[in-house]
Amino acid sequence: MRAAIFRGPGQIELGERPGSRIQLPTDAVVRVVLGCVCGSDLWYYRGETPHDLGPIGHEFIGVVDRVGGDVRLLHAGELVVAPFTFSDGTCPNCRAGWPSNCVRGSAFGNRGIDGGQGEAVRVPFADTTLVRVPGSDHSDGTLASLLTLSDVMCTGHHAVVSAGVKNGDTVAVVGDGAVGLCAVIAAKRLGAKRIIALSRNPARQALARSFGATDILAERGDEAVARVLTMTESIGVDAALECVGTDASMKTAFGIARAGSVVGAIGAPHGVEVPVDTVIYRNVGLRGGIAPVRRYIPELLDDVLRGRINPGRVFDFETSLDGVAEAYSAMNERRAVKSLLRIGTI
Amino acid sequence: MRAAIFRGPGQIELGERPGSRIQLPTDAVVRVVLGCVCGSDLWYYRGETPHDLGPIGHEFIGVVDRVGGDVRLLHAGELVVAPFTFSDGTCPNCRAGWPSNCVRGSAFGNRGIDGGQGEAVRVPFADTTLVRVPGSDHSDGTLASLLTLSDVMCTGHHAVVSAGVKNGDTVAVVGDGAVGLCAVIAAKRLGAKRIIALSRNPARQALARSFGATDILAERGDEAVARVLTMTESIGVDAALECVGTDASMKTAFGIARAGSVVGAIGAPHGVEVPVDTVIYRNVGLRGGIAPVRRYIPELLDDVLRGRINPGRVFDFETSLDGVAEAYSAMNERRAVKSLLRIGTI
Repeated sequence: MRAAIFRGPGQIELGERPGSRIQLPTDAVVRVVLGCVCGSDLWYYRGETPHDLGPIGHEFIGVVDRVGGDVRLLHAGELVVAPFTFSDGTCPNCRAGWPSNCVRGSAFGNRGIDGGQGEAVRVPFADTTLVRVPGSDHSDGTLASLLTLSDVMCTGHHAVVSAGVKNGDTVAVVGDGAVGLCAVIAAKRLGAKRIIALSRNPARQALARSFGATDILAERGDEAVARVLTMTESIGVDAALECVGTDASMKTAFGIARAGSVVGAIGAPHGVEVPVDTVIYRNVGLRGGIAPVRRYIPELLDDVLRGRINPGRVFDFETSLDGVAEAYSAMNERRAVKSLLRIGTI
Repeated sequence: MRAAIFRGPGQIELGERPGSRIQLPTDAVVRVVLGCVCGSDLWYYRGETPHDLGPIGHEFIGVVDRVGGDVRLLHAGELVVAPFTFSDGTCPNCRAGWPSNCVRGSAFGNRGIDGGQGEAVRVPFADTTLVRVPGSDHSDGTLASLLTLSDVMCTGHHAVVSAGVKNGDTVAVVGDGAVGLCAVIAAKRLGAKRIIALSRNPARQALARSFGATDILAERGDEAVARVLTMTESIGVDAALECVGTDASMKTAFGIARAGSVVGAIGAPHGVEVPVDTVIYRNVGLRGGIAPVRRYIPELLDDVLRGRINPGRVFDFETSLDGVAEAYSAMNERRAVKSLLRIGTI
């Protein structure tokens, strides 16, 4: 089968891999319909974090092709959303609601595990990993939004849930990437009254506004902190969301968070030093991490199917599997917020 | 009036200060009955953190001596517990439940503000700061426990609340100082089933056990992490409480915290680097800080008066104001867990 292959920093190629097949009775094989490139894929693309050479991509939706003998809840032909990690549903972490920390789980598209940027994926623990999508004849827009449930929309939601956003809150989103934009959607969905998005890119500013941002700030660093404090009577926001993963963005988030609030952080950290004095002397907490996507998909799926949220609008570049290298470079050069890959048909 | 005075690192002296008096109509003057030395007092005593020269001590209980014209809820002769900070009760942080972050508040016993290690204290915002103690003829033990509500017991409780401890949880307490011991009390009080206390001091181990610790570990660092993981089927504890404030104790707490849990941290940080990779890749949060004591006192006061908790047992050294220098050195040399100062009579 054809699949994107990581050959080293800057080298993404379309290659041939052995077709995915059932290896364990709890497996399913999924034909990928849509895949995409994640902001976190850019870290290894740029050579900033290690990544095994081989298959890549951890976000996909597809159609069940075959199931193993122990799979009870899924059948060939069904449309499914895959969380970016597989999980057994029975380990202590899964039972506690943290499937992305499953002790027998792992992410797709690394360490030789089939990736979502390819024609098919073997999905371990299929019953507890995949989520079936009800209905049929979904529009292109709906399918794109379903794809975001694989990671980016659930991750934005995780930032919001981690920060404890509640009805009427003032929220600030640090980061205008796809996750930050999805965090705007998630904050509005949970009732935030005022949503301040930090962005200096006109297209992203417009998208943030259309998702529910009430204020846009082009400032960064100390200037952004000063502006937000001015806007909040020097108290800070009820919830600051760190959606980048750099030291500067973490400092900004802590600088604008009100006493007693929680910074919701989902950016993969690169050289981040948590301002622990702010934690202790201002009671600003820090929560977040790799989103427990499998836990979040059902409630967000319902909102996507009803058209209440349209996170698929974060995709502003699309191509086929043949164009996968371009899908990466468009994001790397910030020509695209997020690149969609049309891989198969339903 | 007589009061302990900080003259510089290692130099605590009993000195003379002008008597406390009403300066604003919202003030009260409190005659101090009991004061004590806090673990955080040792930081400036050792010269490790800055502190203004002058009056010291932020924990005290006492009797209201005089009240200003706008004080409505307190009267001369009433026994009161003072939180370690005063707070106006009306600022946005107070209204949100964070009185120790009051925008017009401050801690007692620094920057020239009267300290609890002295004969009297002017208390600003008396109505919203002080908590009246009902009843009379309280035993010495009860009075000592009431004194702990000024800081240490509420701070241990804050670690527990910050970590979200719930009924049936397995909790580990890193740190066997007075706050760590109070955290054991607080964890048991909120229903923790298993409480692992890290301590290598026999007297503190015994106290921890009597407060509810079910397991005592003498190991530290990586060895402590390995032991706790062995005890918890490699998953980690439901809540890890960081009650020291060093980098080593923070790393231990993050090392033993299960995925998705929250480290409850109340130690004043000294060279602490938060392991942010654990935050993100294991979803371990960090909450805590200077405890919102004024919010916690009422519920804990009730438990003290009913004899359900006896945190006053953390005091294992006592003296009068004349012996204040010795009260510090006993704690500094770890001869005492916590030093009580008998200053006035009820």
